Amino acid sequence: MTETETNDTVGLGARVRQFYAVQMRLLDSGEAEAWADTFTEDAVFEANAHKQPTRGRRAIAAAARAAAAELRAAGTTRRHWLGMCDVAPEEDGTVRVYSYALIIETPAGGPSVVRMSTTCEDLLVDDGGLRVRHRIVARDDIVP
Amino acid sequence: MTETETNDTVGLGARVRQFYAVQMRLLDSGEAEAWADTFTEDAVFEANAHKQPTRGRRAIAAAARAAAAELRAAGTTRRHWLGMCDVAPEEDGTVRVYSYALIIETPAGGPSVVRMSTTCEDLLVDDGGLRVRHRIVARDDIVP
Amino acid sequence: MTETETNDTVGLGARVRQFYAVQMRLLDSGEAEAWADTFTEDAVFEANAHKQPTRGRRAIAAAARAAAAELRAAGTTRRHWLGMCDVAPEEDGTVRVYSYALIIETPAGGPSVVRMSTTCEDLLVDDGGLRVRHRIVARDDIVP
Repeated sequence: MTETETNDTVGLGARVRQFYAVQMRLLDSGEAEAWADTFTEDAVFEANAHKQPTRGRRAIAAAARAAAAELRAAGTTRRHWLGMCDVAPEEDGTVRVYSYALIIETPAGGPSVVRMSTTCEDLLVDDGGLRVRHRIVARDDIVP
Repeated sequence: MTETETNDTVGLGARVRQFYAVQMRLLDSGEAEAWADTFTEDAVFEANAHKQPTRGRRAIAAAARAAAAELRAAGTTRRHWLGMCDVAPEEDGTVRVYSYALIIETPAGGPSVVRMSTTCEDLLVDDGGLRVRHRIVARDDIVP
Repeated sequence: MTETETNDTVGLGARVRQFYAVQMRLLDSGEAEAWADTFTEDAVFEANAHKQPTRGRRAIAAAARAAAAELRAAGTTRRHWLGMCDVAPEEDGTVRVYSYALIIETPAGGPSVVRMSTTCEDLLVDDGGLRVRHRIVARDDIVP
């Protein structure tokens, strides 16, 4: 095993995957408050599609509520698949995760389509449970 | 670690992912009997696309045989991707898994398309190996 | 637990997933030399789309450089998702992994599409870190 393949790292990878499964399901179910609670109080959410980062749990919840309302009005189901996770524990106990995300959308009656492909870079903190302190999402269709 | 992040749970998550990789490959390869053997003898398979649940291993095998024959006749390859697994062990030793599934279809000559997006809720039992006792599949394109 | 579900196997599954996350990101970032370094010096890369296998790390790097140049020229972002990993350790310390892969492509301005669905069969060796000794990729759109 290399240094990044200790037993701790192995367990951490499984915890990270479980965390994302729960977190993305909350977002896709429109549970905006519970979703926001998977971020730290002072979390920063950056996206190359937005001019300004979203700052703080309250703003993150508001953005999720707005997106959920829009999807409900359109009758569209959205699924966030986050995968290909490269999990890198830092010395200070935080965890960097580099991942890919796919957004699959399905209108009532179908068909399902790949709505978006992105990368996601997370800084996770571990205070009894994992939480996102800093997220950077970059859409593949937006070229710098 | 929270209560849902014990070492046992971490190992369980890896076992569940391995189980689904094998199970879905059996289905996609048209190995109907081996696929049915990943369910308990008395398993129940519910789907929002079907009026009645499929009950028992024999009926589950028959349904898989019919689907495989149809795909073979059409010259279509189907791949089930099951992911974003939220793994929740129950006190009685069973395991609840909430997941997303994508069905990717490729006709001879292509192109590949997302044929369907679903959720999947499984009740797994663990008698030496994992098996599905109860599965509920809900297609995203079918609105209640 | 069955024989294939020992703790070692569980940890191995997590290592394999971490390996693929890093490996595929190298390919998708156009880092051809680092990508080739995830194969053994004498690795063989077979594909049902190619008449001849690609042999050796140098040839694997060259192929990746050519593909990256083509994508850059076209302004297309490619993401390799490798998943549904069935991880089977062999008695000699090597590891067989049977997986599915999806290639998602996004041109500048979008939209993202499923470009290809394949299977992947790897023989991994473990000399301090995992490396691919033999890979067989089969596109689903190419019928034998």
